[in-house]
Amino acid sequence: MADSRVNPAPPADPGSDLHLDLRPGRGRRAALMDALRDAVRSGRLTPGTRLPSYRTLATDLGLARNTVAEAYAELVAEGWLTARQGSGTRVAARATPPERGPVRRAAPAERPPRPSYDLRPGSPDAASFPRAAWLASARRALTAAPNDAFGAGDPRGRAELRRSLAGYLARARGVRTDPDRIVVCAGFAHALRLLVPLLDGPFAVESYGLAFHRGLLETPARATTALAIDEHGARTGDLPATTARAVLLTAAHQFPTGGPLHPARRAAAVDWARATGGLVLEDDYDGEFRYDRQAVGALQGLDPERVCYLGSVSKSLSPALRLGWMVLPGHLVDEVLAEKGEREAWTSVTDQLTLADFIDSGGYDRHIRRMRLRYRRRRDQLVATLAERAPHVRVTGIAAGLHAVLRLPPGTEPSVLKGAAWQGLAVDGLAAYRHPAATTPVQDGLVVGYGTPPDHAFPAALDALCRALP
Amino acid sequence: MADSRVNPAPPADPGSDLHLDLRPGRGRRAALMDALRDAVRSGRLTPGTRLPSYRTLATDLGLARNTVAEAYAELVAEGWLTARQGSGTRVAARATPPERGPVRRAAPAERPPRPSYDLRPGSPDAASFPRAAWLASARRALTAAPNDAFGAGDPRGRAELRRSLAGYLARARGVRTDPDRIVVCAGFAHALRLLVPLLDGPFAVESYGLAFHRGLLETPARATTALAIDEHGARTGDLPATTARAVLLTAAHQFPTGGPLHPARRAAAVDWARATGGLVLEDDYDGEFRYDRQAVGALQGLDPERVCYLGSVSKSLSPALRLGWMVLPGHLVDEVLAEKGEREAWTSVTDQLTLADFIDSGGYDRHIRRMRLRYRRRRDQLVATLAERAPHVRVTGIAAGLHAVLRLPPGTEPSVLKGAAWQGLAVDGLAAYRHPAATTPVQDGLVVGYGTPPDHAFPAALDALCRALP
Repeated sequence: MADSRVNPAPPADPGSDLHLDLRPGRGRRAALMDALRDAVRSGRLTPGTRLPSYRTLATDLGLARNTVAEAYAELVAEGWLTARQGSGTRVAARATPPERGPVRRAAPAERPPRPSYDLRPGSPDAASFPRAAWLASARRALTAAPNDAFGAGDPRGRAELRRSLAGYLARARGVRTDPDRIVVCAGFAHALRLLVPLLDGPFAVESYGLAFHRGLLETPARATTALAIDEHGARTGDLPATTARAVLLTAAHQFPTGGPLHPARRAAAVDWARATGGLVLEDDYDGEFRYDRQAVGALQGLDPERVCYLGSVSKSLSPALRLGWMVLPGHLVDEVLAEKGEREAWTSVTDQLTLADFIDSGGYDRHIRRMRLRYRRRRDQLVATLAERAPHVRVTGIAAGLHAVLRLPPGTEPSVLKGAAWQGLAVDGLAAYRHPAATTPVQDGLVVGYGTPPDHAFPAALDALCRALP
Repeated sequence: MADSRVNPAPPADPGSDLHLDLRPGRGRRAALMDALRDAVRSGRLTPGTRLPSYRTLATDLGLARNTVAEAYAELVAEGWLTARQGSGTRVAARATPPERGPVRRAAPAERPPRPSYDLRPGSPDAASFPRAAWLASARRALTAAPNDAFGAGDPRGRAELRRSLAGYLARARGVRTDPDRIVVCAGFAHALRLLVPLLDGPFAVESYGLAFHRGLLETPARATTALAIDEHGARTGDLPATTARAVLLTAAHQFPTGGPLHPARRAAAVDWARATGGLVLEDDYDGEFRYDRQAVGALQGLDPERVCYLGSVSKSLSPALRLGWMVLPGHLVDEVLAEKGEREAWTSVTDQLTLADFIDSGGYDRHIRRMRLRYRRRRDQLVATLAERAPHVRVTGIAAGLHAVLRLPPGTEPSVLKGAAWQGLAVDGLAAYRHPAATTPVQDGLVVGYGTPPDHAFPAALDALCRALP
């Protein structure tokens, strides 16, 4: 507002007029403090400079003397100015950072340019998030919550959510548990981070999987071993009797190759765990989405003391909620809680309470059914389009989840990926998921995430995919 | 509903009648599967037992033959049963866990019995969470959010929130930043976890502080060094020129001793950082709550390239939201993001968007003002009550935050704590916060968190406190 010139008193005149630009819209004291800080920062007021007396500056700027006195006192407390008896108020010696021009920024992170079409797997259709139903649940849940919900949280997670999950998982996924053995976490990766320090032996993983998850299981001293995959899924009968402490399995729908684990292999995994004292980590990332038949129940039901069931809302609802759960063997509950800490440090209570209501009110089931139909239609559309336009490309894996694998002629995967990039299409090749130590024969293929694009963009994405295929 | 007796076909008769109790309220197939699983689990159907044919069981139970066939097929897929040509359907050999009686549970965690009164510091008044205003912000924020908000998240945090925070922190706390240098996290401890791996030298901390935070900074090979505290706060002039890489300071309100850092000490901390290339970690845990004067601005404003400002909603709003922020020197932004991962793995997008709206709509400021009044009144009540009933006990520290320190005669702290426990009062002693290597003279005192109890319980808690004092 006021743009006033101030001539500081002689002893240490800054040598030029001082502009103090008091911005409108704030209190006068705050505006004066801002203006003085700016003047120090920009170097217009140099270290050691003596500032005008309260009276002088107040008169010059048309402010109350107290306002100036208070502003000076604030800036002394913050370390911008110093005040010494007999020496007046001066600009502090340290208050000028060696700064020329604007604040130094970090270099913008290196990110590839955004592709026109995105068929990378791993994300649900973000446009389908059930905003209205979620908000309705949030309203009910936050209104009904006891006060202590907003204090320091129980690291197990809210009891309301653990109760809802125990019921839902038993009903929808055949999980056998009770709320006391469920620990809420911030997603699948968080679950692995909590479990890894408790399991000191080496881990076995499937020959194809997420490198990110493998990375969480490995230490410099301890690589993961790769379990071969064939048409019946991971060869759990090959699990070493002594050297693996735990095995990570995507039993319902192998990620990314797409098959279910054969019943005999399911039994073999449990047998191994019983015989060796090992643990099966069941990554049930998309268990709700099966299109050709009812979903196969969780492996965990076969032996809750040997299988740790891990799930989340990341595929069913949204990865942005950061909500997951661990269904633990009884003997691991206290260890996981000790690892997690004395108080809930990760997951939001508002989302926990809202999800509990969303499950109990039937909203979660309705959303799952709606999305199952939608993804199923997308998968059918993918299969039909390929049958018509690229009949030599086979879609493998069961009708399930949010992704399909397109088998390619041997040796062609890299060139197809290049072609896809040329079409502005982001899509993954199977090679990116292969364990470095895998002995399974190399398969060429694309991992197509048909859940990722919004509805309106899906046909164009399919079109780009067809153009990229050999 | 139906409770039918089934006599399995001869070859492997289980030896007794089999009760299959089909519970009402679910589909017939699901009910039959549940009943069969229960029978296997309980040992009534033992491994190898041949099940009746579809036709027999369907007739016995009054079900369609297809329903039974489907249930058997499901259970084969899940690994409970096996089906072999010519051998019929049998209970799988591995499907009976060695289980007698109920599922083994974890021992209930050892927790001290809940005290009648809680004056431990660290929590805001949970009963004051602004539910209605928060829900209104959630509604606006989730309705207005772009679709991609519900996809995989940016590890920096939502741009909406970083913009709101940059404005708010500049206005309310004198923080100098822009949204690109803010990284959202799950609270103060998460911020430390992200920073520690990037700072490979040893850390200096204040002689009194949270052991939990010290623990996050220490490794087996690297203890923290203790900075002495006197009446001007931490002696930052004593910071070692070479051996410390970073220092953790509670500049606005030393936790827990309660003083502000003297301006000269603020300057000394920045000087040290500039001279040595070190970093100041500013823990601004309760900076908004000052009652006797305007809050002193953040130390970060003095040198944004040397001070990393860390804040959260844990004291201002609720620790249950798990929302915090780091205001980083430019050169650390990319390193912190690399440490955090490619996608947001921790903080909830719904809370991030809601907080952005809550700040922008003025709801956050209104809540802070309301709570400032409320906590101030509590502090006044504490001081007045002590003046009347325990005039020999001095309340030290500035009028700020959610806790006060009650100085006790030397050597009396342990007995006062025992007395408090006897009164059913949970309260902390200063000794619990003392660094093991501190050289500062030992102080006896109580750390009283007057924010923790709900309003109605506060007078009784004060009463219990007075009874516990010498």
